[in-house]
Amino acid sequence: MYSSETHIRIHYALTDQMGVVYHGHYAQFYEIGRSEAIRQLGYTYKDIEAMGIIMPVVDIHSKFLRPAKYDDLITVKTNLKELPTAHKIIFHSEIYNEAGDLLNVGDVTLYFMEAKTMKRCNMPEALKQKIVQFFGQY
Amino acid sequence: MYSSETHIRIHYALTDQMGVVYHGHYAQFYEIGRSEAIRQLGYTYKDIEAMGIIMPVVDIHSKFLRPAKYDDLITVKTNLKELPTAHKIIFHSEIYNEAGDLLNVGDVTLYFMEAKTMKRCNMPEALKQKIVQFFGQY
Amino acid sequence: MYSSETHIRIHYALTDQMGVVYHGHYAQFYEIGRSEAIRQLGYTYKDIEAMGIIMPVVDIHSKFLRPAKYDDLITVKTNLKELPTAHKIIFHSEIYNEAGDLLNVGDVTLYFMEAKTMKRCNMPEALKQKIVQFFGQY
Amino acid sequence: MYSSETHIRIHYALTDQMGVVYHGHYAQFYEIGRSEAIRQLGYTYKDIEAMGIIMPVVDIHSKFLRPAKYDDLITVKTNLKELPTAHKIIFHSEIYNEAGDLLNVGDVTLYFMEAKTMKRCNMPEALKQKIVQFFGQY
Repeated sequence: MYSSETHIRIHYALTDQMGVVYHGHYAQFYEIGRSEAIRQLGYTYKDIEAMGIIMPVVDIHSKFLRPAKYDDLITVKTNLKELPTAHKIIFHSEIYNEAGDLLNVGDVTLYFMEAKTMKRCNMPEALKQKIVQFFGQY
Repeated sequence: MYSSETHIRIHYALTDQMGVVYHGHYAQFYEIGRSEAIRQLGYTYKDIEAMGIIMPVVDIHSKFLRPAKYDDLITVKTNLKELPTAHKIIFHSEIYNEAGDLLNVGDVTLYFMEAKTMKRCNMPEALKQKIVQFFGQY
Repeated sequence: MYSSETHIRIHYALTDQMGVVYHGHYAQFYEIGRSEAIRQLGYTYKDIEAMGIIMPVVDIHSKFLRPAKYDDLITVKTNLKELPTAHKIIFHSEIYNEAGDLLNVGDVTLYFMEAKTMKRCNMPEALKQKIVQFFGQY
Repeated sequence: MYSSETHIRIHYALTDQMGVVYHGHYAQFYEIGRSEAIRQLGYTYKDIEAMGIIMPVVDIHSKFLRPAKYDDLITVKTNLKELPTAHKIIFHSEIYNEAGDLLNVGDVTLYFMEAKTMKRCNMPEALKQKIVQFFGQY
């Protein structure tokens, strides 16, 4: 498994009149989490796009356990539990507040696609080389 | 079943550099769809809050089939397939473009909660009276 | 002068924990206002982009007089006070609530630019023909 | 003068189909800049709200010089040029990319208001004590 953590400070724009973070913004937290997960491998999503590959989101499942609040410094833990073998990659996100309470979990499935042809493709080899070490033999 | 339709014009702010609507914004489309579904019953979510009841989202599952694009006039079809019996309500959303292509489906689960106590509660009777007619005998 | 009106229903995502619309979202209201102003002329901003011209915003000045609130149906009045003569166009927006209170005014300046060269250019002739009738002789 | 710097990584949600950061999101960058400016003084905007004071934005003026792009690590420089003497405070923001190019400048005026009465009030003394040292004698 490959696991990564990043932190996000909740600013006012993310709150709603219930006094908590609007539920629709968690997809952005997952996005920030997975882009930082890739960056911590020494690679970036920007590099992937520069190779002509895009990664559209095809499925998100979010569970909201407790609300995040204004000025909270949340931790986004991003886990890759399986090495992608084809065109699909699934990131599992867990979001915690400073007290360590689990606020939210989200599973996000993305495809690797060639931007030019819009055909599904495999994970770029350069990215795979960065990740494979975390998954032992196989 | 109770079913409702509303329309949303995609403005620039909703697009991203892939040239499509950012995946994280669909939660807002579901929100607009279900608030209009309630309004078409002659009631509003604002009325519900005025009664001291809030409806936090506890679960969202989205599937992204085709992208929505800038200036598309999308249709959000919001379905209530079951009459809520306790503190939980599930809205099923389908999003179509003008050509009638299904772009996205989303299931959103919300709880009814008393704002003061933050305890789960039943659907307000006034809202139930509006909905019950769509669900035949029971 | 050319003047146009459009309406926007405030959904939950636009509110913040002050219980009002977050100030940063008004730029989107101006955008919706000016794109509908162009559409009401029988043209679209999408058409402009299809011609290879983009219109980046170069200046915004907003004054916030009264807050917009959840579920308000606001009116965005978009005025073009002068016919653009070169690469610059200024839209003046006024935002009202249902009671007719003026909530916000915003002046937004955009440039016409060729997407390919990123050089400033004149307003497309096809758009000018739609607008010129509102400005009398000149 | 009191000056502060903070950094923001541009994520995908902030881009639009022009391939740059959507102009409407800069207001959020100013917000993050000024809240971090206050935090660096050993105080927070959350503390201010806890005292029953809110700070609505009443005026924003933004100039867009160059676009911020996906994955840019922008610097928000937030300057307080004058010590507020009454209910008004003006923050001047400058936004730079990693190459040091000035992308955007924004002046944001906020009022201090009592949340209960919605009457304008003076800057909280506790915050003033943190800031006054940066403004020499007076």
